[in-house]
Amino acid sequence: MEAEYGTILLASGQPKTVEEGQKTMSKGRYIILAVLCGTVALAVGVIIGWFSKSSLTEEDRVALDKFRALVRGADETVGNTIMDEIDSERIRENLRELTKKPHMAGTAPDHEMAELIRQTWLDNGLDEARLVPYDFLLSYPPMGEMGPNNTAVTVDGTDFEFEDTRTAHIEPELQGDPDAPQFFYAFSPPGNPVGELVFANYGRPQDFEYLEKNASINCTGKIAIVKYGREGRGTKATNAAAVGAVGIIIYPDPADVNVPGGQVYPDGWFLPGTGVERGSTLSDPGEPLTPGYPATDYAYRKPLGDVDVFPPIPILPISYNDAQEYLLRLSGEEVPSGWNGSLPITYRLGPGFTDDWAAREVRINVYTNTTIQRVYNVIGMIKGRVEPDRYVMFGNHYDAWVQGAIDDTSSTAISLELTRVMGNLLKEEKWRPRRSVVFAAWGAEEFGLFGSMEYVEQYAKLLGERLVTYVNMDVGVAGNYSLAVGASPSLRNAIFEATKRIPSPHNDPDKTVYDDWAQGEETPYIGGITLSTDHSSFALRVGTPVMTMAYDYDKTGYPTGTSYPVYHTGYDNMDVMERFVDPDFSVHRALARTAGELLRYLSDEVLLPLEWEQYVPVLTASLNATVTDYGTAFEEQGISLDGLASAIQNFSDAAAEFKNVMDRIDKDNPIQARIVNDQLVAVNKAFIDTNRQHVFFKHVLFSPAYCTLGTSNSFPGIVDAMCGGPQGEGWEEVKKQVAAISFTIQSAADVLNDVDSIAGPK
Amino acid sequence: MEAEYGTILLASGQPKTVEEGQKTMSKGRYIILAVLCGTVALAVGVIIGWFSKSSLTEEDRVALDKFRALVRGADETVGNTIMDEIDSERIRENLRELTKKPHMAGTAPDHEMAELIRQTWLDNGLDEARLVPYDFLLSYPPMGEMGPNNTAVTVDGTDFEFEDTRTAHIEPELQGDPDAPQFFYAFSPPGNPVGELVFANYGRPQDFEYLEKNASINCTGKIAIVKYGREGRGTKATNAAAVGAVGIIIYPDPADVNVPGGQVYPDGWFLPGTGVERGSTLSDPGEPLTPGYPATDYAYRKPLGDVDVFPPIPILPISYNDAQEYLLRLSGEEVPSGWNGSLPITYRLGPGFTDDWAAREVRINVYTNTTIQRVYNVIGMIKGRVEPDRYVMFGNHYDAWVQGAIDDTSSTAISLELTRVMGNLLKEEKWRPRRSVVFAAWGAEEFGLFGSMEYVEQYAKLLGERLVTYVNMDVGVAGNYSLAVGASPSLRNAIFEATKRIPSPHNDPDKTVYDDWAQGEETPYIGGITLSTDHSSFALRVGTPVMTMAYDYDKTGYPTGTSYPVYHTGYDNMDVMERFVDPDFSVHRALARTAGELLRYLSDEVLLPLEWEQYVPVLTASLNATVTDYGTAFEEQGISLDGLASAIQNFSDAAAEFKNVMDRIDKDNPIQARIVNDQLVAVNKAFIDTNRQHVFFKHVLFSPAYCTLGTSNSFPGIVDAMCGGPQGEGWEEVKKQVAAISFTIQSAADVLNDVDSIAGPK
Repeated sequence: MEAEYGTILLASGQPKTVEEGQKTMSKGRYIILAVLCGTVALAVGVIIGWFSKSSLTEEDRVALDKFRALVRGADETVGNTIMDEIDSERIRENLRELTKKPHMAGTAPDHEMAELIRQTWLDNGLDEARLVPYDFLLSYPPMGEMGPNNTAVTVDGTDFEFEDTRTAHIEPELQGDPDAPQFFYAFSPPGNPVGELVFANYGRPQDFEYLEKNASINCTGKIAIVKYGREGRGTKATNAAAVGAVGIIIYPDPADVNVPGGQVYPDGWFLPGTGVERGSTLSDPGEPLTPGYPATDYAYRKPLGDVDVFPPIPILPISYNDAQEYLLRLSGEEVPSGWNGSLPITYRLGPGFTDDWAAREVRINVYTNTTIQRVYNVIGMIKGRVEPDRYVMFGNHYDAWVQGAIDDTSSTAISLELTRVMGNLLKEEKWRPRRSVVFAAWGAEEFGLFGSMEYVEQYAKLLGERLVTYVNMDVGVAGNYSLAVGASPSLRNAIFEATKRIPSPHNDPDKTVYDDWAQGEETPYIGGITLSTDHSSFALRVGTPVMTMAYDYDKTGYPTGTSYPVYHTGYDNMDVMERFVDPDFSVHRALARTAGELLRYLSDEVLLPLEWEQYVPVLTASLNATVTDYGTAFEEQGISLDGLASAIQNFSDAAAEFKNVMDRIDKDNPIQARIVNDQLVAVNKAFIDTNRQHVFFKHVLFSPAYCTLGTSNSFPGIVDAMCGGPQGEGWEEVKKQVAAISFTIQSAADVLNDVDSIAGPK
Repeated sequence: MEAEYGTILLASGQPKTVEEGQKTMSKGRYIILAVLCGTVALAVGVIIGWFSKSSLTEEDRVALDKFRALVRGADETVGNTIMDEIDSERIRENLRELTKKPHMAGTAPDHEMAELIRQTWLDNGLDEARLVPYDFLLSYPPMGEMGPNNTAVTVDGTDFEFEDTRTAHIEPELQGDPDAPQFFYAFSPPGNPVGELVFANYGRPQDFEYLEKNASINCTGKIAIVKYGREGRGTKATNAAAVGAVGIIIYPDPADVNVPGGQVYPDGWFLPGTGVERGSTLSDPGEPLTPGYPATDYAYRKPLGDVDVFPPIPILPISYNDAQEYLLRLSGEEVPSGWNGSLPITYRLGPGFTDDWAAREVRINVYTNTTIQRVYNVIGMIKGRVEPDRYVMFGNHYDAWVQGAIDDTSSTAISLELTRVMGNLLKEEKWRPRRSVVFAAWGAEEFGLFGSMEYVEQYAKLLGERLVTYVNMDVGVAGNYSLAVGASPSLRNAIFEATKRIPSPHNDPDKTVYDDWAQGEETPYIGGITLSTDHSSFALRVGTPVMTMAYDYDKTGYPTGTSYPVYHTGYDNMDVMERFVDPDFSVHRALARTAGELLRYLSDEVLLPLEWEQYVPVLTASLNATVTDYGTAFEEQGISLDGLASAIQNFSDAAAEFKNVMDRIDKDNPIQARIVNDQLVAVNKAFIDTNRQHVFFKHVLFSPAYCTLGTSNSFPGIVDAMCGGPQGEGWEEVKKQVAAISFTIQSAADVLNDVDSIAGPK
C-alpha cells in the first residue's frame, strides 16, 4: 500500500517526508484518508475515462472488419510474389511433358491432356477444375497408313498412279507415330478428283481471273496448285471451284514461309521441304452442326447435308519438295513476275506437264472425313473473396495439329505454372482475389475455335452477367522479340500498367516487357479483335473486354501474310522451342509474369482498371473511314451520316462526363464501386446488337465484314451492305445498317450516362 | 477546490470532520496531500479507463455509419404512411382533370397530358421527370366532319348512297368535339369497297367456312358484317379477305357486351346502341416501321409498302343500332342457332337485302389513314439511396381512344397520387428507397403497345442490367369486385404479401385486398403474361419479372370474350366512373395503396422478394402439356423429350439447392445481398433465347404462339413448329425447338447454380 501510495506520489513529482512520533498516529490516519481518496479517485477516473470514450462493441468490430474486407484494395506485394515464384524450368518441364505426343482434338492424347490439366489445376490448389464435355463434328485424315492422303500423277490418264510421283502423306520424322495425323485440311470433302494441273499463284479470285483472261486457261476440270498464304484455305477452294476446278493442292512456297538463307530444321527453325501446314477450311468459325447453341447432349444437330461452311472441292496440302516435282514439269507459259516463288525452278502456269509426264494428270487422294468426337474444355476456378460472381478469365487452347510446342502448348505450359503459383498463395492463405479467377483450356480451337465458341454459346447469359475481362494467350511463345497484343479499347491501359511492372526477358535490368513492346514509340502497338483465336467469341457475341497476348519474333525480313515457318507442321516441337525460340525459357517466364500480373490486377482492384474513353478514337476513326470510303456515294443516295455522327458525339460527351462520375464516387463504398464496375463492363457489352443476323458476330465495331473484298475500315455492317453481304444488298440495307449502328452507339452512351439516363435525354 | 475535494470524498461515502487548531495546519498539509493524491489518481484512472476500452475512431464511426446504411432494411412504417396519405378525393380530382378531353395518342390533348404528368411528377418531388420523344406511325380517322367514316347502302348499285342508311360516325354526345375521333379501326387501309352484305358471325375461319360449305355463300366481292369479340379485329379482316370479301364491318352485339336487362348508359354502365368500340388492327404489336429499333430520330423506317401487319381490306366498326338496320333487312336463310345475337330481329346470313333494299349493296367509307406523329413516354424517377442503378418500375399508359376514364386514365390518376405521396416522403426526408423507383406513363399503347415496346427496344441493355421488376396497371379500375393480376412466377409471393397489408375497399375492416382477391380459395388466381398491355415487352424481350394489376368487376352473368361494356367507346368517361364504377373512389385508393406497398417493398428490402422455385410448376405443366398434346406424334417421329425433362429436372434441383444458398448468405453483407439479388433477377432473364426469330418474342415460356389455331399449353416454340409458324415447319423444326427450349431452361438452371456453375457440371 505504502509503496503504491508512494509510487503515485512520486509519479506526481511531489515526494513528502515523514517527521514526528505524535504526529505519526495522526499522519497515519491522514495517509489512510489520502489513500482512500486516491483509490476512489482512481476508480472514478477509470469510469470517466471509459465512458468519455465512444464504445466499440463486439458487433461494431465484426461490422467494421466485414466492411473493411469489402473495400480492401489490391496488395501489390502479391504481384511481386507471383513474379518471384514463376519458374522457367518448371515451364520447360511442363512443355516437355505436354509435347510428348501429338494431341489433335478428340484423340486419346487430347483427352489425356485435358485430364492432366484438370488434375494439375486441382493439385495446384484451384477451388474447382472440371471437364466440360461436348460432341463436336471434327474432320480427320485417314489414321496410320490408311488412305493415305496424297496426290499422284496418273498413268496414261487411267486410274493407276505413277508410283514415284506419290506425294508424302506425313513428315518422315512422324512416320509410324499412331497419334500423328497425316497431311490434311480439316473438313475437305473426301474424293479422288483427277485433272490437268494448273498453277494459280495464291488461289485468289484475281489469280484465277488472270489465268482465264490473260493466259486463256480454262480451269474447268483442272486441279489447281496454289501457294499457301494471302487468302483462307477454304476460300481458295471456293475460288477454284468457282472457275470449275475439281480439286486444289496447296503448298508452302519457301518464299512465303522462310527467309532467304535461313537454315531449315533441324539446323534452324525454318520450314524444311518435308513439312506441311495442316489447318481447318471452314468458311465460318464454330461447330458446324449446332449454330447458335452448344454442341452438348440433347443439342439439335443439322443434317450434314445442310452444312454450308465446308469447301466445295477436295483440298489437300503437300510439301514444297513434292510441289517442286510437279511445278518443274509444268508446261505452258511462264508465270507473271509477281507469281514467282523461290523454288529453284522456272514457274509455269500449265495446264499439264511436259516431257515424260506429258498428257499425264494429277489425282488428289483425300480420305479425310467428318466424325463426331468427344472434346473437353477444362475450366478451373479460384473463387473470389468478395465478389465471387465477377470473373476474370484466362484461357488458351490445348489442342494442336501435331505437338504444337509453339501453337499453343507453350501457353498451356504457362497456364499450369500460373495456377501452381497462384494456388500456392491460396494454400498458404496469403491471398484470395476480390473477384474469381477462371482458367480455361480450350478444346478443338484448331478446327475453328470450337471449344471457346461453344462455351460462350453455352454460358452466354452467365458470362454476360459476370465476366469482366477475358485474357487469351495463343501461339504464346513464337519468339523473344516483343509482346504482341490484340485487345478491346478498354484494356489498353491495364496492359500497359501490367507490362511496365515486368522485367524484359532480355537480361537488361533497366528494361521491361513494356519497353521491348513499345520499341521506342510513345505507346506500344495494340491490334484489334480478329477471328484468329479464342478471344473473339467473348468479344463478338457477349461484348466482354478481351485481349490476346503472345511473345513474337522480329519479323524484319520475313515474308508477310503467313505465320512462323513451322506453323501447324510436325516441326512445331520441343526441339525447335529449346534450341531456337526460347532456350532458357525466359520468354515463357516473362509472358507468365505478364499474364499473372494482369490477372492479379484485374481480379483484385476494387475499381476495375477498365477504360471507357478509348472507344472515342475508335468510333471517330470508323466514322472518318466511312466518310472517306463511301461519303460521296452516300451523298448521291441521300444517305445521311448525321445520326451516326450525333451518336458518336453523344458517346464522347458521356465519356467525358463519366470522368466526373469516377471522381465523385465514394471509393470506400463497396456498392458504389460495384455500380461503377458494372457500368465499365456494360459499356463494352453495349456495342453488341442482338438484331445482327450472324449468330456470333453481334458486335457493331469488331465483327468481321463478310465480304473479303471489303477492305474498308468503316463499320462492318456498312461494309457488308456496300458489298452485298448476307444481310441483303442495296441502299435500303445501307440505310438500315447506318441506323442500327447509330442506335447501338447511342445505347453505349446511355450506359455511360448516370443512372437517370433511363429517364431519357435531359 | 475544497468543494470538489469534499464532493469526491462524499462520493466515496467516507466523510471526515476537522477538529483541532494546531492540527489544522498539519491537517491542511495532509489534506493538500490527499487532494493531490486524489487528483493524480483521478487522472491516471481516466487514462486507464480510456485505454482499457477499445477505441471507436472518427474514421470507424464514419465507416460504421456507411456500412449500416448499406445493409439497412426496409422500414415498414413507411408503408403505413403511404397507405394513410393516399387520398381518394385527390385521385377523383386527378381523374376529372385528366378525362376532360379525349386524348388519343399524338393529338394536342395527348401532348398536353404528357406535359401535365411530367410537371406534376416534378412538382410532387420526383428527382427526375422527362418526356422521351418518338415519331410513331399512327393511324387516324378523318378529323371533324371530314370523311366521314361510315357505311351506307348504295342507291341502285351506283356510287350514290341511300342517305338515310348512312351509319353514325361518332357518338352523338361527342359530335362537334374537335378532339373526339370518329369511329375507326386504326391501320385499316382507306377505301370505299362496295358489295352485298353477308353476316359471318364472329368472322373466324370456321364462320366463313360455314358460309361457304353449309350455306353455299361465296364471299368473293362481298362485304362481311360480323360481331365484335372472340377473335382479333385485324384477324377478322384477314379471315374475310381470305375468302374474297372486299370489306368488313364489325358491330358489338348486345349479347356480347351487355347483360340481359342491364341498363345502358346514361342509366347504367352498359353499352347504348350509339356506342362504338375503336381499336387497333395490327397483327403484331410494336411500331410498324421500326422493328427491332426505337422509332427515334435517325431511325431507319421501312417503306410503308413493306409493312405486313396491316389488315388487307377496309375494316370499320359501327354501332349496334346501325347494324340492326342492316341485319333486320338481310335476306337468305336464318343463321344457325349459335350465331344469334340479342338484337330484336331474326338473324339471317344474306347475302344482300330483302324488300325495299333488295339488290342494294353496302359501301364502307374508310378515310382512315396513317400518319407519323410525335408521341411521348413520360419517365420519372426517385433515385435510390444505396443502389440507384437498380430500378423498380411502375407504368401505365396515358393515351386513350376517347376520354378513357377506365382505360387507362384511372391508372394515370393513381400514378399522380402515388408520386405525390412518395414525393412528400422525399421532401420531408422521411424516406428514400434503397433502389430507384421509376414511374412511366406510356404513350400510344392503344395503337399496339408502341410506347412501352419502343422504350424497351431503346433501353434494352440498361433495363437488362438494372431493372429488377416492372409493375403495370391498365384498365386500373373497371369495377369494385376484386384485384385481377397477371404476373411472372417470381412475383407471386411479393404480390400476396403486399395485398395482405391493404384493407379491402369494401368497408369491411377485417378484410384485405388479398381476401377479396382469393375469394375463399387458398391462394388468389394469378394469370400469365399476355400481349394485352405494356408489361409484355419487358417480359418477352428482356425477361424482367413483371406483373400487371387492375380492380375488376364481378363477371358473373357477363358475356365472355369481350371487355367491359363501354370499353374503347365514347362512354368510357368520368360520369360512368363516378356514378357506376367507383363512386367513392375507395377502389382507386385500394389499388393505389397496393401499388405503393409493392413499390416500397420491392425497392426497399435488402433482399429482393423474388421467388425462383415458382418456375418449377410452370415448367412441369408445360412439359406435361407437351406430352399430352404431342407425345404420341413425337414418339412416332423419334423425337425425344428426354433433354427437356432433364433440363427441367436440373432446374428443379438447382432451385432446391438455391434455398440453401439463401440460408447460407450473410444478409448483413451488402455485396452478398447484391450477388443474390442479381441471381434472382437473372433467373428470370435466363428464359430469354435471343436466337428466337421474332424481334420481340424472345421468351421460351411466355411468348405468344403465332398460330392462333394452336391452343396447346405446351411451349410456344413447339406449338408454332407443330402448326407451321413462321420459324419454319416440319419435324426438323420441332426437333430444333425442343433442343432450343431444353438448352434455355438449362441455362436458367446454370444461373441459379452457385457461382461455380461456369466451371461446367460437377
